[in-house]
Amino acid sequence: MTAEGRPVSVGRRGRRPGTSTSRQAILEAARARFASDGFAATTIRRVAADAGVDPSLVMQFYRSKNELYAAVMSISPDTLASLSTAFEGPDERLGERVVRAYLGVWEGGADSESLMAMLRGAITNEQASAQLREFIQARLLDGVRSRASDRHDAALRAGLASSMLVGVTMGRRIVGVPIIASADVETLVALVAPAIQSVLT
Amino acid sequence: MTAEGRPVSVGRRGRRPGTSTSRQAILEAARARFASDGFAATTIRRVAADAGVDPSLVMQFYRSKNELYAAVMSISPDTLASLSTAFEGPDERLGERVVRAYLGVWEGGADSESLMAMLRGAITNEQASAQLREFIQARLLDGVRSRASDRHDAALRAGLASSMLVGVTMGRRIVGVPIIASADVETLVALVAPAIQSVLT
Repeated sequence: MTAEGRPVSVGRRGRRPGTSTSRQAILEAARARFASDGFAATTIRRVAADAGVDPSLVMQFYRSKNELYAAVMSISPDTLASLSTAFEGPDERLGERVVRAYLGVWEGGADSESLMAMLRGAITNEQASAQLREFIQARLLDGVRSRASDRHDAALRAGLASSMLVGVTMGRRIVGVPIIASADVETLVALVAPAIQSVLT
Repeated sequence: MTAEGRPVSVGRRGRRPGTSTSRQAILEAARARFASDGFAATTIRRVAADAGVDPSLVMQFYRSKNELYAAVMSISPDTLASLSTAFEGPDERLGERVVRAYLGVWEGGADSESLMAMLRGAITNEQASAQLREFIQARLLDGVRSRASDRHDAALRAGLASSMLVGVTMGRRIVGVPIIASADVETLVALVAPAIQSVLT
Protein backbone atom coordinates (compact mmCIF):
# COMPACT_ATOMS: atom_id res chain seq x y z
CA MET A 1 0.00 0.00 0.00
CA THR A 2 1.21 3.52 -0.66
CA ALA A 3 1.05 6.26 1.94
CA GLU A 4 -2.23 7.40 0.35
CA GLY A 5 -3.76 3.98 0.90
CA ARG A 6 -3.88 2.94 -2.76
CA PRO A 7 -2.72 -0.57 -3.54
CA VAL A 8 0.83 -0.65 -4.92
CA SER A 9 0.81 -1.45 -8.63
CA VAL A 10 3.28 -4.12 -9.66
CA GLY A 11 3.55 -2.35 -13.01
CA ARG A 12 4.91 -3.65 -16.30
CA ARG A 13 8.20 -5.52 -16.21
CA GLY A 14 10.84 -4.77 -18.83
CA ARG A 15 11.28 -8.42 -19.69
CA ARG A 16 8.86 -10.84 -21.27
CA PRO A 17 7.04 -13.15 -18.83
CA GLY A 18 9.11 -16.15 -17.79
CA THR A 19 12.54 -14.57 -18.17
CA SER A 20 12.90 -13.38 -14.61
CA THR A 21 11.51 -16.70 -13.38
CA SER A 22 14.14 -18.58 -15.40
CA ARG A 23 16.90 -16.31 -14.15
CA GLN A 24 15.78 -16.88 -10.59
CA ALA A 25 15.59 -20.65 -11.10
CA ILE A 26 19.09 -20.68 -12.59
CA LEU A 27 20.53 -18.61 -9.73
CA GLU A 28 18.91 -20.86 -7.13
CA ALA A 29 20.11 -24.01 -8.88
CA ALA A 30 23.62 -22.53 -9.18
CA ARG A 31 23.73 -21.48 -5.52
CA ALA A 32 22.77 -25.01 -4.42
CA ARG A 33 25.14 -26.71 -6.86
CA PHE A 34 28.15 -24.50 -5.98
CA ALA A 35 27.43 -25.20 -2.29
CA SER A 36 27.15 -28.99 -2.70
CA ASP A 37 29.81 -29.66 -5.38
CA GLY A 38 32.10 -26.62 -5.08
CA PHE A 39 32.97 -24.15 -7.82
CA ALA A 40 35.40 -26.34 -9.78
CA ALA A 41 33.12 -29.39 -10.11
CA THR A 42 29.98 -27.44 -11.00
CA THR A 43 29.12 -27.26 -14.71
CA ILE A 44 26.78 -24.98 -16.64
CA ARG A 45 25.14 -28.12 -18.05
CA ARG A 46 24.38 -29.46 -14.57
CA VAL A 47 23.00 -26.14 -13.30
CA ALA A 48 20.78 -25.93 -16.40
CA ALA A 49 19.45 -29.45 -15.76
CA ASP A 50 18.76 -28.60 -12.10
CA ALA A 51 16.90 -25.44 -13.15
CA GLY A 52 14.98 -27.24 -15.91
CA VAL A 53 16.28 -24.97 -18.68
CA ASP A 54 18.52 -25.39 -21.70
CA PRO A 55 22.27 -24.77 -21.10
CA SER A 56 22.23 -22.17 -23.89
CA LEU A 57 19.83 -20.07 -21.79
CA VAL A 58 22.30 -20.12 -18.88
CA MET A 59 25.06 -18.99 -21.24
CA GLN A 60 22.80 -16.31 -22.75
CA PHE A 61 22.08 -14.88 -19.27
CA TYR A 62 25.49 -15.32 -17.60
CA ARG A 63 28.06 -15.96 -20.37
CA SER A 64 30.43 -18.04 -18.21
CA LYS A 65 30.63 -20.05 -14.99
CA ASN A 66 32.68 -17.20 -13.48
CA GLU A 67 29.89 -14.71 -14.10
CA LEU A 68 27.27 -17.15 -12.86
CA TYR A 69 29.19 -17.55 -9.59
CA ALA A 70 29.57 -13.79 -9.31
CA ALA A 71 25.82 -13.36 -9.88
CA VAL A 72 25.12 -15.84 -7.06
CA MET A 73 27.31 -13.59 -4.88
CA SER A 74 25.41 -10.48 -6.11
CA ILE A 75 28.50 -9.21 -7.93
CA SER A 76 27.98 -7.75 -11.40
CA PRO A 77 29.93 -8.68 -14.55
CA ASP A 78 31.12 -5.04 -14.70
CA THR A 79 32.83 -5.40 -11.33
CA LEU A 80 34.55 -8.63 -12.39
CA ALA A 81 35.59 -7.04 -15.66
CA SER A 82 37.05 -3.94 -14.05
CA LEU A 83 39.27 -6.09 -11.83
CA SER A 84 40.44 -8.24 -14.76
CA THR A 85 40.95 -5.36 -17.16
CA ALA A 86 43.25 -3.55 -14.74
CA PHE A 87 45.82 -6.38 -15.03
CA GLU A 88 45.84 -6.13 -18.84
CA GLY A 89 47.60 -3.59 -21.04
CA PRO A 90 51.10 -2.13 -20.84
CA ASP A 91 53.37 -2.54 -17.82
CA GLU A 92 53.69 1.20 -17.48
CA ARG A 93 51.46 2.34 -14.57
CA LEU A 94 50.17 -1.23 -14.15
CA GLY A 95 50.46 -0.98 -10.35
CA GLU A 96 48.49 2.25 -10.32
CA ARG A 97 45.71 0.83 -12.55
CA VAL A 98 45.35 -2.24 -10.36
CA VAL A 99 45.32 -0.26 -7.10
CA ARG A 100 42.70 2.17 -8.44
CA ALA A 101 40.55 -0.69 -9.75
CA TYR A 102 40.65 -2.50 -6.37
CA LEU A 103 39.93 0.59 -4.32
CA GLY A 104 37.17 1.48 -6.78
CA VAL A 105 35.27 -1.78 -6.58
CA TRP A 106 35.99 -2.69 -2.94
CA GLU A 107 35.48 0.69 -1.36
CA GLY A 108 33.13 2.75 -3.46
CA GLY A 109 31.67 0.50 -6.12
CA ALA A 110 28.08 -0.68 -6.38
CA ASP A 111 29.16 -4.18 -5.33
CA SER A 112 31.50 -3.30 -2.46
CA GLU A 113 29.08 -4.66 0.15
CA SER A 114 28.64 -7.89 -1.84
CA LEU A 115 32.41 -8.32 -2.11
CA MET A 116 32.76 -7.73 1.62
CA ALA A 117 29.98 -10.25 2.34
CA MET A 118 31.71 -12.80 0.09
CA LEU A 119 34.99 -12.28 1.99
CA ARG A 120 33.34 -12.48 5.42
CA GLY A 121 31.48 -15.61 4.33
CA ALA A 122 34.71 -17.28 3.24
CA ILE A 123 36.38 -16.39 6.53
CA THR A 124 33.61 -17.80 8.70
CA ASN A 125 32.31 -20.72 6.64
CA GLU A 126 34.45 -23.55 5.28
CA GLN A 127 32.04 -24.38 2.44
CA ALA A 128 31.99 -20.74 1.28
CA SER A 129 35.77 -20.63 1.62
CA ALA A 130 36.20 -23.72 -0.59
CA GLN A 131 34.00 -22.21 -3.31
CA LEU A 132 35.82 -18.89 -3.21
CA ARG A 133 39.29 -20.43 -3.35
CA GLU A 134 38.35 -22.50 -6.41
CA PHE A 135 36.79 -19.47 -8.08
CA ILE A 136 39.86 -17.30 -7.43
CA GLN A 137 42.24 -20.05 -8.54
CA ALA A 138 40.32 -20.46 -11.82
CA ARG A 139 40.23 -16.71 -12.40
CA LEU A 140 43.95 -16.36 -11.71
CA LEU A 141 44.82 -19.09 -14.20
CA ASP A 142 42.26 -17.92 -16.79
CA GLY A 143 43.37 -14.32 -16.50
CA VAL A 144 46.93 -15.02 -17.51
CA ARG A 145 47.70 -14.66 -21.19
CA SER A 146 51.42 -15.41 -21.17
CA ARG A 147 53.20 -18.55 -22.36
CA ALA A 148 52.55 -21.78 -20.48
CA SER A 149 56.01 -21.77 -18.88
CA ASP A 150 55.33 -18.39 -17.25
CA ARG A 151 51.68 -19.03 -16.54
CA HIS A 152 52.14 -20.24 -12.98
CA ASP A 153 54.48 -17.37 -12.13
CA ALA A 154 52.11 -14.75 -13.58
CA ALA A 155 49.10 -16.23 -11.79
CA LEU A 156 51.02 -16.31 -8.48
CA ARG A 157 52.05 -12.67 -8.92
CA ALA A 158 48.46 -11.62 -9.67
CA GLY A 159 47.23 -13.63 -6.68
CA LEU A 160 49.76 -12.04 -4.34
CA ALA A 161 48.96 -8.52 -5.59
CA SER A 162 45.23 -9.18 -5.13
CA SER A 163 45.78 -10.61 -1.64
CA MET A 164 47.83 -7.57 -0.63
CA LEU A 165 45.14 -5.19 -1.85
CA VAL A 166 42.39 -7.14 -0.09
CA GLY A 167 44.60 -6.89 3.02
CA VAL A 168 44.65 -3.09 2.66
CA THR A 169 40.84 -3.08 2.34
CA MET A 170 40.57 -5.27 5.45
CA GLY A 171 42.82 -2.90 7.39
CA ARG A 172 40.67 0.02 6.25
CA ARG A 173 37.13 -1.36 6.26
CA ILE A 174 36.95 -4.58 8.27
CA VAL A 175 39.36 -3.98 11.16
CA GLY A 176 39.16 -0.22 10.48
CA VAL A 177 42.48 0.93 11.94
CA PRO A 178 42.04 4.75 11.98
CA ILE A 179 45.39 5.73 10.52
CA ILE A 180 44.85 3.34 7.57
CA ALA A 181 41.11 3.98 7.17
CA SER A 182 41.53 7.75 7.06
CA ALA A 183 44.18 7.80 4.32
CA ASP A 184 42.80 9.29 1.11
CA VAL A 185 42.86 7.44 -2.18
CA GLU A 186 45.69 9.49 -3.73
CA THR A 187 47.92 8.89 -0.69
CA LEU A 188 47.21 5.16 -0.94
CA VAL A 189 47.92 5.10 -4.66
CA ALA A 190 51.22 6.93 -4.11
CA LEU A 191 52.34 4.51 -1.37
CA VAL A 192 50.92 1.21 -2.65
CA ALA A 193 51.06 1.39 -6.46
CA PRO A 194 54.88 1.05 -6.70
CA ALA A 195 54.66 -2.00 -4.42
CA ILE A 196 51.98 -3.64 -6.55
CA GLN A 197 53.95 -2.77 -9.69
CA SER A 198 56.98 -4.54 -8.22
CA VAL A 199 54.98 -7.70 -7.41
CA LEU A 200 53.48 -7.83 -10.91
CA THR A 201 56.48 -7.08 -13.11
CA MET B 1 45.18 -41.56 36.01
CA THR B 2 48.19 -42.84 34.12
CA ALA B 3 48.07 -45.89 31.86
CA GLU B 4 49.41 -47.96 34.77
CA GLY B 5 46.48 -46.89 36.94
CA ARG B 6 48.46 -44.68 39.32
CA PRO B 7 46.90 -41.32 40.17
CA VAL B 8 48.48 -38.44 38.23
CA SER B 9 50.63 -36.32 40.51
CA VAL B 10 50.02 -32.60 40.23
CA GLY B 11 53.69 -32.12 41.08
CA ARG B 12 55.48 -29.04 42.31
CA ARG B 13 54.75 -25.81 40.51
CA GLY B 14 57.65 -23.51 39.61
CA ARG B 15 55.95 -20.45 41.07
CA ARG B 16 55.08 -19.70 44.66
CA PRO B 17 51.44 -20.28 45.64
CA GLY B 18 49.17 -17.42 44.64
CA THR B 19 51.13 -16.22 41.62
CA SER B 20 49.23 -18.23 39.03
CA THR B 21 45.97 -17.27 40.74
CA SER B 22 46.91 -13.59 40.52
CA ARG B 23 47.93 -13.95 36.86
CA GLN B 24 44.62 -15.62 36.10
CA ALA B 25 42.65 -12.94 37.97
CA ILE B 26 44.51 -10.20 36.07
CA LEU B 27 43.89 -11.86 32.70
CA GLU B 28 40.19 -12.31 33.44
CA ALA B 29 39.84 -8.72 34.63
CA ALA B 30 41.70 -7.47 31.55
CA ARG B 31 39.59 -9.55 29.18
CA ALA B 32 36.38 -8.14 30.70
CA ARG B 33 37.69 -4.57 30.80
CA PHE B 34 39.00 -4.58 27.19
CA ALA B 35 35.61 -5.96 26.11
CA SER B 36 33.56 -3.38 27.98
CA ASP B 37 35.72 -0.25 27.60
CA GLY B 38 37.84 -1.03 24.51
CA PHE B 39 41.62 -1.16 24.34
CA ALA B 40 42.28 2.59 24.34
CA ALA B 41 40.19 3.43 27.42
CA THR B 42 41.41 0.51 29.53
CA THR B 43 44.16 1.29 32.03
CA ILE B 44 46.55 -0.95 33.96
CA ARG B 45 45.34 0.75 37.14
CA ARG B 46 41.73 -0.15 36.43
CA VAL B 47 42.52 -3.77 35.56
CA ALA B 48 44.54 -4.06 38.79
CA ALA B 49 41.62 -2.69 40.81
CA ASP B 50 39.21 -5.12 39.11
CA ALA B 51 41.56 -8.02 39.87
CA GLY B 52 42.15 -6.87 43.46
CA VAL B 53 45.94 -6.58 43.03
CA ASP B 54 48.46 -3.76 43.04
CA PRO B 55 49.15 -2.11 39.63
CA SER B 56 52.85 -2.87 40.08
CA LEU B 57 52.04 -6.59 40.02
CA VAL B 58 50.30 -6.18 36.65
CA MET B 59 53.37 -4.37 35.33
CA GLN B 60 55.68 -7.00 36.79
CA PHE B 61 53.76 -9.78 35.01
CA TYR B 62 52.94 -8.04 31.71
CA ARG B 63 55.22 -4.97 31.42
CA SER B 64 52.77 -2.91 29.28
CA LYS B 65 49.13 -2.64 28.25
CA ASN B 66 50.15 -3.94 24.80
CA GLU B 67 51.57 -7.13 26.29
CA LEU B 68 48.57 -7.53 28.59
CA TYR B 69 46.22 -7.34 25.58
CA ALA B 70 48.39 -9.81 23.69
CA ALA B 71 48.31 -12.17 26.69
CA VAL B 72 44.51 -11.99 26.71
CA MET B 73 44.68 -13.03 23.05
CA SER B 74 47.13 -15.87 23.93
CA ILE B 75 49.94 -14.16 22.04
CA SER B 76 53.37 -14.14 23.66
CA PRO B 77 55.62 -11.11 24.16
CA ASP B 78 58.21 -12.82 21.92
CA THR B 79 55.77 -12.83 19.01
CA LEU B 80 54.95 -9.14 19.48
CA ALA B 81 58.64 -8.33 19.78
CA SER B 82 59.61 -10.20 16.63
CA LEU B 83 57.06 -8.21 14.61
CA SER B 84 58.22 -4.88 16.07
CA THR B 85 61.91 -5.63 15.82
CA ALA B 86 61.65 -6.40 12.11
CA PHE B 87 60.68 -2.77 11.40
CA GLU B 88 63.75 -1.45 13.25
CA GLY B 89 67.32 -1.26 12.06
CA PRO B 90 68.79 -0.22 8.72
CA ASP B 91 66.70 0.29 5.58
CA GLU B 92 68.80 -2.22 3.72
CA ARG B 93 66.84 -5.51 3.47
CA LEU B 94 64.06 -3.99 5.63
CA GLY B 95 61.38 -5.46 3.33
CA GLU B 96 62.92 -8.89 3.58
CA ARG B 97 63.21 -8.74 7.39
CA VAL B 98 59.56 -7.72 7.72
CA VAL B 99 58.28 -10.37 5.29
CA ARG B 100 60.26 -13.13 7.05
CA ALA B 101 59.05 -11.96 10.47
CA TYR B 102 55.38 -11.96 9.34
CA LEU B 103 55.56 -15.32 7.64
CA GLY B 104 57.42 -16.68 10.67
CA VAL B 105 54.87 -15.65 13.29
CA TRP B 106 51.68 -16.01 11.19
CA GLU B 107 52.46 -19.26 9.47
CA GLY B 108 54.82 -21.30 11.54
CA GLY B 109 55.17 -19.62 14.90
CA ALA B 110 53.90 -20.90 18.24
CA ASP B 111 51.18 -18.23 18.23
CA SER B 112 50.01 -18.52 14.63
CA GLU B 113 46.68 -20.07 15.64
CA SER B 114 46.13 -17.36 18.25
CA LEU B 115 46.85 -14.64 15.68
CA MET B 116 44.44 -16.28 13.26
CA ALA B 117 41.77 -16.53 15.97
CA MET B 118 42.27 -12.83 16.80
CA LEU B 119 41.83 -11.92 13.12
CA ARG B 120 38.75 -14.12 12.68
CA GLY B 121 37.28 -12.68 15.86
CA ALA B 122 37.76 -9.12 14.62
CA ILE B 123 36.14 -9.99 11.30
CA THR B 124 33.05 -11.55 12.83
CA ASN B 125 32.56 -9.54 16.02
CA GLU B 126 32.31 -5.75 16.18
CA GLN B 127 33.47 -5.54 19.81
CA ALA B 128 36.57 -7.64 19.04
CA SER B 129 37.16 -5.54 15.95
CA ALA B 130 37.04 -2.29 17.95
CA GLN B 131 39.59 -3.62 20.46
CA LEU B 132 41.92 -4.84 17.75
CA ARG B 133 41.80 -1.60 15.76
CA GLU B 134 42.68 0.44 18.86
CA PHE B 135 45.50 -1.97 19.75
CA ILE B 136 46.96 -1.83 16.22
CA GLN B 137 46.60 1.95 16.05
CA ALA B 138 48.48 2.33 19.37
CA ARG B 139 51.20 -0.10 18.28
CA LEU B 140 51.65 1.67 14.95
CA LEU B 141 52.06 5.05 16.63
CA ASP B 142 54.24 3.70 19.48
CA GLY B 143 56.44 1.78 17.09
CA VAL B 144 57.52 4.84 15.17
CA ARG B 145 60.72 6.48 16.34
CA SER B 146 60.98 9.26 13.77
CA ARG B 147 60.35 12.98 14.23
CA ALA B 148 56.80 14.07 15.00
CA SER B 149 56.28 15.57 11.53
CA ASP B 150 56.98 12.20 9.90
CA ARG B 151 55.30 10.13 12.59
CA HIS B 152 51.93 9.86 10.87
CA ASP B 153 53.53 9.00 7.53
CA ALA B 154 55.76 6.30 9.07
CA ALA B 155 52.85 4.79 11.02
CA LEU B 156 50.69 4.73 7.87
CA ARG B 157 53.46 3.01 5.90
CA ALA B 158 53.94 0.40 8.63
CA GLY B 159 50.17 -0.13 8.80
CA LEU B 160 49.88 -0.61 5.04
CA ALA B 161 52.82 -3.02 4.93
CA SER B 162 51.29 -5.03 7.79
CA SER B 163 47.86 -5.07 6.11
CA MET B 164 49.39 -6.29 2.85
CA LEU B 165 51.22 -9.10 4.62
CA VAL B 166 48.11 -10.13 6.57
CA GLY B 167 46.36 -10.16 3.17
CA VAL B 168 48.95 -12.61 1.84
CA THR B 169 48.42 -14.82 4.92
CA MET B 170 44.65 -14.68 4.36
CA GLY B 171 45.09 -15.69 0.72
CA ARG B 172 47.30 -18.58 1.82
CA ARG B 173 45.73 -19.79 5.04
CA ILE B 174 42.16 -18.47 5.39
CA VAL B 175 40.85 -18.52 1.82
CA GLY B 176 43.61 -20.96 0.86
CA VAL B 177 43.90 -20.29 -2.87
CA PRO B 178 46.11 -23.21 -4.02
CA ILE B 179 48.52 -21.25 -6.20
CA ILE B 180 49.20 -18.80 -3.34
CA ALA B 181 49.12 -21.39 -0.53
CA SER B 182 51.59 -23.68 -2.25
CA ALA B 183 54.26 -21.04 -2.89
CA ASP B 184 57.33 -21.66 -0.73
CA VAL B 185 58.73 -19.08 1.64
CA GLU B 186 61.76 -18.17 -0.50
CA THR B 187 59.53 -17.56 -3.54
CA LEU B 188 57.29 -15.32 -1.43
CA VAL B 189 60.24 -13.40 -0.03
CA ALA B 190 61.62 -12.86 -3.54
CA LEU B 191 58.28 -11.56 -4.87
CA VAL B 192 56.93 -9.67 -1.85
CA ALA B 193 60.00 -8.24 -0.06
CA PRO B 194 60.76 -5.57 -2.71
CA ALA B 195 57.09 -4.47 -2.55
CA ILE B 196 57.17 -4.16 1.25
CA GLN B 197 60.51 -2.36 1.02
CA SER B 198 58.92 0.15 -1.36
CA VAL B 199 55.95 0.81 0.96
CA LEU B 200 58.23 1.31 3.97
CA THR B 201 60.98 3.51 2.54
